[in-house]
Amino acid sequence: MKAVRFFGLKDVRVVNDQEKPVPTGDEVLLKIGGAGVCHSDLHIIDEGTVSGVVFTLGHENAGWIEAMGPAVKGYKKGDAVLVYGPWGCGHCKPCQLSSENYCDHQSEMAFGGGLGLNGGMAEYLLVPSSRLLVPIYDLDPVIAAPLTDAALTPYSAIKRSLHKLMSDEFVVVIGVGGLGHVALQILRAMTGATVIACDITPDRLEFARSLGAAYAINSKDSDAAEQIKKITGIKKAKVVLDFVGATSTIELGAKVVSLNGDLTIIGLGGGKFSYNMMGLPFGVNMSNPYWGSRTELMEVVGLARQKKIHIEIEKYPLDQAVEVYDKLRNGKIKGRAVLIP
Amino acid sequence: MKAVRFFGLKDVRVVNDQEKPVPTGDEVLLKIGGAGVCHSDLHIIDEGTVSGVVFTLGHENAGWIEAMGPAVKGYKKGDAVLVYGPWGCGHCKPCQLSSENYCDHQSEMAFGGGLGLNGGMAEYLLVPSSRLLVPIYDLDPVIAAPLTDAALTPYSAIKRSLHKLMSDEFVVVIGVGGLGHVALQILRAMTGATVIACDITPDRLEFARSLGAAYAINSKDSDAAEQIKKITGIKKAKVVLDFVGATSTIELGAKVVSLNGDLTIIGLGGGKFSYNMMGLPFGVNMSNPYWGSRTELMEVVGLARQKKIHIEIEKYPLDQAVEVYDKLRNGKIKGRAVLIP
Amino acid sequence: MKAVRFFGLKDVRVVNDQEKPVPTGDEVLLKIGGAGVCHSDLHIIDEGTVSGVVFTLGHENAGWIEAMGPAVKGYKKGDAVLVYGPWGCGHCKPCQLSSENYCDHQSEMAFGGGLGLNGGMAEYLLVPSSRLLVPIYDLDPVIAAPLTDAALTPYSAIKRSLHKLMSDEFVVVIGVGGLGHVALQILRAMTGATVIACDITPDRLEFARSLGAAYAINSKDSDAAEQIKKITGIKKAKVVLDFVGATSTIELGAKVVSLNGDLTIIGLGGGKFSYNMMGLPFGVNMSNPYWGSRTELMEVVGLARQKKIHIEIEKYPLDQAVEVYDKLRNGKIKGRAVLIP
Amino acid sequence: MKAVRFFGLKDVRVVNDQEKPVPTGDEVLLKIGGAGVCHSDLHIIDEGTVSGVVFTLGHENAGWIEAMGPAVKGYKKGDAVLVYGPWGCGHCKPCQLSSENYCDHQSEMAFGGGLGLNGGMAEYLLVPSSRLLVPIYDLDPVIAAPLTDAALTPYSAIKRSLHKLMSDEFVVVIGVGGLGHVALQILRAMTGATVIACDITPDRLEFARSLGAAYAINSKDSDAAEQIKKITGIKKAKVVLDFVGATSTIELGAKVVSLNGDLTIIGLGGGKFSYNMMGLPFGVNMSNPYWGSRTELMEVVGLARQKKIHIEIEKYPLDQAVEVYDKLRNGKIKGRAVLIP
Repeated sequence: MKAVRFFGLKDVRVVNDQEKPVPTGDEVLLKIGGAGVCHSDLHIIDEGTVSGVVFTLGHENAGWIEAMGPAVKGYKKGDAVLVYGPWGCGHCKPCQLSSENYCDHQSEMAFGGGLGLNGGMAEYLLVPSSRLLVPIYDLDPVIAAPLTDAALTPYSAIKRSLHKLMSDEFVVVIGVGGLGHVALQILRAMTGATVIACDITPDRLEFARSLGAAYAINSKDSDAAEQIKKITGIKKAKVVLDFVGATSTIELGAKVVSLNGDLTIIGLGGGKFSYNMMGLPFGVNMSNPYWGSRTELMEVVGLARQKKIHIEIEKYPLDQAVEVYDKLRNGKIKGRAVLIP
Repeated sequence: MKAVRFFGLKDVRVVNDQEKPVPTGDEVLLKIGGAGVCHSDLHIIDEGTVSGVVFTLGHENAGWIEAMGPAVKGYKKGDAVLVYGPWGCGHCKPCQLSSENYCDHQSEMAFGGGLGLNGGMAEYLLVPSSRLLVPIYDLDPVIAAPLTDAALTPYSAIKRSLHKLMSDEFVVVIGVGGLGHVALQILRAMTGATVIACDITPDRLEFARSLGAAYAINSKDSDAAEQIKKITGIKKAKVVLDFVGATSTIELGAKVVSLNGDLTIIGLGGGKFSYNMMGLPFGVNMSNPYWGSRTELMEVVGLARQKKIHIEIEKYPLDQAVEVYDKLRNGKIKGRAVLIP
Repeated sequence: MKAVRFFGLKDVRVVNDQEKPVPTGDEVLLKIGGAGVCHSDLHIIDEGTVSGVVFTLGHENAGWIEAMGPAVKGYKKGDAVLVYGPWGCGHCKPCQLSSENYCDHQSEMAFGGGLGLNGGMAEYLLVPSSRLLVPIYDLDPVIAAPLTDAALTPYSAIKRSLHKLMSDEFVVVIGVGGLGHVALQILRAMTGATVIACDITPDRLEFARSLGAAYAINSKDSDAAEQIKKITGIKKAKVVLDFVGATSTIELGAKVVSLNGDLTIIGLGGGKFSYNMMGLPFGVNMSNPYWGSRTELMEVVGLARQKKIHIEIEKYPLDQAVEVYDKLRNGKIKGRAVLIP
Repeated sequence: MKAVRFFGLKDVRVVNDQEKPVPTGDEVLLKIGGAGVCHSDLHIIDEGTVSGVVFTLGHENAGWIEAMGPAVKGYKKGDAVLVYGPWGCGHCKPCQLSSENYCDHQSEMAFGGGLGLNGGMAEYLLVPSSRLLVPIYDLDPVIAAPLTDAALTPYSAIKRSLHKLMSDEFVVVIGVGGLGHVALQILRAMTGATVIACDITPDRLEFARSLGAAYAINSKDSDAAEQIKKITGIKKAKVVLDFVGATSTIELGAKVVSLNGDLTIIGLGGGKFSYNMMGLPFGVNMSNPYWGSRTELMEVVGLARQKKIHIEIEKYPLDQAVEVYDKLRNGKIKGRAVLIP
């Protein structure tokens, strides 16, 4: 079968020499409907963050069940499902609670299809356990594939702070891109908090307003923090979600986050922050969460089925994978690119 | 000054012999903008649930600060505020956490203006402590008065279950009246759960749909529970909010609530339920909450200021109080009646 | 192999005709170390609460891994483990969160070994999935077996209320028997709340004091509720845990539970309670939880490994199962009986 | 009356020229039983962290009510009480929830007696509102005074993480001094977690073991992190409480804290930490909390009344304040010094 393979630093090729896997035990063979193309793939391809292994790319996967090992229960051929991305040990406490994204053994193992193990940019994907499937019912796998990361990651970051996002509070969203624009939709659907969006171009700020942001601030403005504090008043923002993660955005977040608030950094911008007693308001939780849990992905599917979140996608055939990564590198993908076998 | 006084069973009169109070200590004198007319007043008037005292009615109050005792800090004359309704001791742990609705001393004391102490159906109301005020900023006190009960009560009931109201779950709202129709708006604003509304007339069901209910079921249908379970599937409804509280509605709730779900009875319908091991799914929290907390009222104001909730009101002059209660008794008030001095 | 089989109403026999199972897929074959004998078995045997099936009894099981199906990962032969008792579908949301005790499909399926499916009163037990195992490391399976129910059930009931069990609050424990005496140890280990224990004999009350109860009240006393309220003062008990579940104990709980508290009924005493607006303080969660979750069982193991909980056991050979059930029926088992193959 | 006054940098004197205050409004005059002497006073005295004001020192205060303003309710002369230390605005949402330590207006105002306003190192203290009192019933104010800070601060830090401190998890406590040794007692009383204590002298480590630490590690050992990880295994410590706050201790915490755990820095050691994507495990909440809430102080009193926490104190007359600060500076106070008028 065809597959988009990572052979090493800057070496990605579409090949047609992979064998269609045969599931055993609790494994499931999935006929891929769509595989999302993610910025973090570029870290693998261009920077070699995963090395010493050759594997099929693609960690945002959806499709239909094609075959099952004999131990699989509760599914049948043809069921439309998402593939939960972070593949943990399955036995530790976080995994038992469906939070494989925080599996105790994360540092010891290859951690998911498309991330060191074979992923979904292929005609078929062998999923190592049925526990990693999430049914999507009437949703189209092509459209649903990016939910597994581009929606699950902001969803999980927001859920950490859900109890603080009450209707008399402010939340600042920095970066209205691939994840941030989904965050805005999730905030609108699930919280009563007033949203202040930050980005650096007028069209992004306008986009943010169309997705429910009550205010949109250009974070390049030297007085962006003051503009935000003028809106919030002295209480400042109870929650800041930074989808950029650059030094400047973390520093902006630190200036506008409230006492006992949450400063959550999701973006992989490589920013630094010098933490000390005086650098952040007392009681602020500063954190850098990772992806989300299996049951959170079920909840994301619930939002999508109710049409409360929508990810703009561009469809491409699997054969064009190399060109699509090139477009992504050059900022020429508008929504989320999805490869279709 | 003028006031609507309760003199005893079925004896309510508008009088003009009350003296304008003078605040001392931490007391605040409020110039009333509006006082909401609530069904529970009829329990007092027609059934004598509060007896042996003569007092001014009105427990849904809003207005402007007219004068303050010398110990009041943080407010100034003219500030528009709501009056939080359940007046607790102020010192016990629930009161310190702003939940005066669950004050340890509730059973020992007259528990709020209009409920045994002088309320807000008058030109002025003496509020016993500034801690009972919630600022409303640019909201109009006439429109805002019913927030203190008709919005706060469903808000607090929903907040108990907020962590269970995820976007892959179902919530059943029984009764789309004064409180229920606000509950629908709150659910839409603050949760991703799919709402199933129940009521007994086509126009109420249509009203529910217009407020975001995905499904509307006539609870008089003998197979109402089956209709609901057909929608939810085997998982049933994680939360049931019963704004009627009749025996039949509690029993309907018990049939459709999920294992480990919440069955919350807000309506004062006087229903009974025979509780035993087999009567409810395992793990269900059955409860009968009361009103809400001071900080929950702040959050309700947050929803109203963002126009995420709206209570339809009918304005009447204070003089017509007796006629308005008559209309209410006869089901002739559509939204919430508010008396204006 | 030998096994204690349920053949129908009042018909339990030890037979020696069962074949040693062979695990496939994700199944695990356990060499049984000990199988606890539980009061709820008597409901099955004497009342026929499970009917139409013949199976091996025993739902409190511990032992060593003997063999594994090819899909099992993360375990090896000889590992000492507990068997989590409620066997859910494994795929629904509660199961994904390890709460198989609230599996969506509970009403549709035989629900655990010893409860309609073959249990652990045998030389070997076939566990249907490795996800149902909890490692116990250096604990002895004979001693640990009762943790799976006699400790997990009170643990889970207490954990529901953990956030209410602060050090300025009171908790009432009704019934200091098999589950109640473990509850006292868990409360002492995990909460700062002041414990008031209730039972009906002086030795049980003394036993309760030895396990950390600050007060012990004879619940047969006609003024038991008044005695409790004299201790708690007007705030009453924030949490009541009823391990009897008779009508009289539920009514006692209803009298002493605090506004917005928890009244949790664990005992299978068949009690009834007439629920209505005035029967319980406002805001009380009345519930009847069932067993516990997989990760809660991990936490129970943590308590046992630290010697913070201890269950007194009496060891019997598997052959004496019928006699042991007889002793249990006649109140002649003091601690927990464990059958050893 | 006599008082210990701060006149400016390094200028503290005991004077006898202060007038006994007279309470008005909701104010309460307290006859001081004891005033704790805290390390943070030395920051004020020796470094001038509060400047431009002259005031009476002492922010750990307890005593008996001597007189009350006319608006005070629920107290009577002679009641033994603690004074809650952080004096917020009383009106913002955090204050309404009793968390004046996170008052919205903290940055705008003098924030408590002994911290810019007159404190309790005097014969009498004027408390600005009765809401700041916490009854201690039968506890001795001399012994109870340090609860207001030396116990409340670790209590509040632990309560942030209470839901993570389950009995199968590890917690690391760095620094077994004035606050750390109380933290150990609170952890033992309220959680089932296994405690690993770190300090730098054998007697401190022995002290830690006597207070319930299962392990005690010398944090000067170059392999301290490895020693801790050998104990915890791959899951590492779910919670780290750093009561030192030096660069080295924060770095130690960062090495041993678990994915999705809590790294909580309470000590004022002035440490720095360079925060970036790779510096901390994913999902860790890094925070620097401040003091505690009014209701948390109620809970601390609950622990002390049950003798579950104990602070070793040394009593000194008020006149010796200057000498006592000197002893404190030179490490010659073993427990907590309390000044007694």
